[in-house]
Amino acid sequence: MMRIPAEQMKETIRKAFMRAGMPENKAAICAQTHMESSLDGVYSHGLNRVGRFVDYLHKGWVYPAADPIPAEAFGVMEVWDGQMGPGITNALIAMERATELASINGIGLVALRNTTHWMRGGTYGRYAAEKGYVALCWTNTESCMPTWGAISSGIGNNPFILAVPGNPHPIVLDMAMSQYSYGRLQVTRLKGEKLPYPGGFDENGELTDDPAAIEATRRILPTGYWKGSGMAILLDLIAAILSGGKTTAAIDRYGKGSCGSCCQIFMAIDPLRFNSREMVQQAIDETIRQLKDSIPVNAGTDILYPGERTIRTREENREKGIPVDEAIWKTVCQLAGETPD
Amino acid sequence: MMRIPAEQMKETIRKAFMRAGMPENKAAICAQTHMESSLDGVYSHGLNRVGRFVDYLHKGWVYPAADPIPAEAFGVMEVWDGQMGPGITNALIAMERATELASINGIGLVALRNTTHWMRGGTYGRYAAEKGYVALCWTNTESCMPTWGAISSGIGNNPFILAVPGNPHPIVLDMAMSQYSYGRLQVTRLKGEKLPYPGGFDENGELTDDPAAIEATRRILPTGYWKGSGMAILLDLIAAILSGGKTTAAIDRYGKGSCGSCCQIFMAIDPLRFNSREMVQQAIDETIRQLKDSIPVNAGTDILYPGERTIRTREENREKGIPVDEAIWKTVCQLAGETPD
Repeated sequence: MMRIPAEQMKETIRKAFMRAGMPENKAAICAQTHMESSLDGVYSHGLNRVGRFVDYLHKGWVYPAADPIPAEAFGVMEVWDGQMGPGITNALIAMERATELASINGIGLVALRNTTHWMRGGTYGRYAAEKGYVALCWTNTESCMPTWGAISSGIGNNPFILAVPGNPHPIVLDMAMSQYSYGRLQVTRLKGEKLPYPGGFDENGELTDDPAAIEATRRILPTGYWKGSGMAILLDLIAAILSGGKTTAAIDRYGKGSCGSCCQIFMAIDPLRFNSREMVQQAIDETIRQLKDSIPVNAGTDILYPGERTIRTREENREKGIPVDEAIWKTVCQLAGETPD
Repeated sequence: MMRIPAEQMKETIRKAFMRAGMPENKAAICAQTHMESSLDGVYSHGLNRVGRFVDYLHKGWVYPAADPIPAEAFGVMEVWDGQMGPGITNALIAMERATELASINGIGLVALRNTTHWMRGGTYGRYAAEKGYVALCWTNTESCMPTWGAISSGIGNNPFILAVPGNPHPIVLDMAMSQYSYGRLQVTRLKGEKLPYPGGFDENGELTDDPAAIEATRRILPTGYWKGSGMAILLDLIAAILSGGKTTAAIDRYGKGSCGSCCQIFMAIDPLRFNSREMVQQAIDETIRQLKDSIPVNAGTDILYPGERTIRTREENREKGIPVDEAIWKTVCQLAGETPD
């Protein structure tokens, strides 16, 4: 397997974004975030997503130089307009602003409309949690999944993120409302494998763990069946209603690619407003201890807290280099004007 | 099937609570809430839960006359101490306070600690949404489910509620982090039926739809496998950290029954702070239209939005009376000092 050092990957992505028209500062931030996603093992939204993002820049679906602007403000609550700028820089500015509001008021909520794909949602939860805040954030998306009870697509997979500061690492949950992404189906199919659990319906309407059968029907399964379907609907409505932006239905009509003109909610809460650092740490420690003290399914394996596997992957990839698909790496190098080794 | 008129059920429950030591005003509010849960078809937390709640009052696990008191306040954010009072009245006061804070500040967050079982979480989301607020709320609980990867219980099923005002009915999602409750397993087993989808693991560690096999191992399945497990952990931590209350691990040690001294988060947000009522309604209307326009799995069936089935059940039960298990109804009548018909 080919591995690329993190700094090299970041630099190559940065050049690819600049050649596609992004200003240097934005290209550097976006390259850092894509690299970190791959570093953490979220390859689908790291290096592997660079080509598609560059394509969106070329199509004019993302405006490379646009900055988000404040549209409405009332104390702890603000609405920003993303002006179809890069989803990563828009989301980082929105979460940064939510933490600023929380540092003053205890809570900060930024509702961002008219933005674009934020790539990996966990980025923003982790960002706030590393600054010491409890974070909730989510995005709506174009529809990519049938509502429970339907066979045609009607709802988004609307990733939802919860994060809590920890010592030394934050605890971060980053979950889409589909049980598996289309990216996961593709990767599993290309390996000739089955999904670990059923991930959608086949042409006979039966649940299946065969990724190709699900790709054929496009009936991916909401996480928890009716539950993920319902949660996707509510997350979509709340994001659109608070930001004054587009619902999934409106994003579908707009037709500017995945998450084109989507809405996002960023919430930061200061856990030390009323409680000591020791009390917060004790709650985290006793919770992790309870997990670790559980009897594992497979003797000798470690029960992980949300985000723990990510940290292990990060450390491994930092040390050994980030694993890449050679064809994808070559494509990104070409986008950067580099000759791959 | 025996059906009891809603008002009669409420009156009987009220008497049962008063005979167990609750003051009249609290008994009336709790009886109303239990009745509404049964009216809406959430029988497990309505009439069927009255006996257990009375038992908790007798054991001293719930203090019948206690009121929640404000412990900390900072603008939009307050911590209240539930003083082990009735979970329903505590939660209603906390959500009412969150909506008051939201009416002033756009957002209100009340973190409630040291409270008891709130029964049906959707009650509080619906309460805020009917007053015009977007609502998020959740509770932690004692552990009742293995963490993903474990066979022994370590995490709570921590119900999570999202609600949006609607016209005429709010849209309400009320989801526990387990795919099915133990109550649902029991009801399904007693009917001699299987679960619609696998709900846990059997003694061989295989997923099964046989409720008895899951009751035997107590390995109920988190909703969405690892996702519901992770979300339960984060909801627990956030509730405990913001309220200064007990984590699931600490509730387990405390040992005062289901949800004894648990923590809850109540968040209300004013959707009209920045947006018109028409814009909010349009977002809801186009979202519901998109669901209703989906191609159903079974031709002719209606795709439902979250909370829609509840509304249909409510109307039917309001008209025909609330279906009851005759033995349970008899027991509650006896607790009320009544002779059942």
